[in-house]
Amino acid sequence: MTLLDLGADGRGFEALDEEECLALLTQKTIGRIALTMQAMPVVFPVNYCFIDGAIAFRTGEGMKLTAATEHTVVAFQVDDIDAVTHCGWSVLAVGIARALTTPADLAWAETLPLRPWAPGSKDHVVRLVPEFLSGRRITDETKASHSWP
Amino acid sequence: MTLLDLGADGRGFEALDEEECLALLTQKTIGRIALTMQAMPVVFPVNYCFIDGAIAFRTGEGMKLTAATEHTVVAFQVDDIDAVTHCGWSVLAVGIARALTTPADLAWAETLPLRPWAPGSKDHVVRLVPEFLSGRRITDETKASHSWP
Repeated sequence: MTLLDLGADGRGFEALDEEECLALLTQKTIGRIALTMQAMPVVFPVNYCFIDGAIAFRTGEGMKLTAATEHTVVAFQVDDIDAVTHCGWSVLAVGIARALTTPADLAWAETLPLRPWAPGSKDHVVRLVPEFLSGRRITDETKASHSWP
Repeated sequence: MTLLDLGADGRGFEALDEEECLALLTQKTIGRIALTMQAMPVVFPVNYCFIDGAIAFRTGEGMKLTAATEHTVVAFQVDDIDAVTHCGWSVLAVGIARALTTPADLAWAETLPLRPWAPGSKDHVVRLVPEFLSGRRITDETKASHSWP
């Protein structure tokens, strides 16, 4: 895994190291997947879990599944930002999405703390192992001199 | 403005019409910008306001400003999803980002309810007029048969 250099966009924030990013990924259950649809960027919320070094989420048919079955590079982002103080953190993970299909993978998926689909709905689990990670935090102390968000 | 057809990804959700999407955009102050950096999708949180039919946010130097000065197509997404019930909504707006540079635009930017930068920091305002909009909502009633999030 590589820490992503966000260049000037990361300037002024407290950069988080890999260990902090991974710890924060385990704290939430709702994140967002960004991918490209017909050359347009799109973003969807997903219910996810971070376990065994991977982000896993369920999806029905659609772009998220297509991205996964085509092994597309997608971005996953999760944050926790106070709407009043604007303090908080954001973690970005980029990697290749893969739909789980082997019996061993599907058995692993069954153990995940993901909200189950209703019976009869098309249910696929996508796994994303972060290849690039980036995290940033802003606190009251650092906020005075910076611009996020 | 065009309502974006999310195909199967939108199936099963309550689709929001343009009026509802625009109303929800005015309710929040923190959203996320998705763009492409070196062929990789990336997502950043931004403090924004939606006013006069446009999303406006401040940024320093970096990818968000580069996207704006190059008139790149970017995605803006905002949501409000309950972490326990998983009920909520998500709105996606896609359009061309433009950095404000004319005296008239900069005067308009001064009137925006955006948290001001600290003195001395590089401060630019980017405006994004949605060309495509998509919104979805899930409630306790619809949740039983669907997959989000």
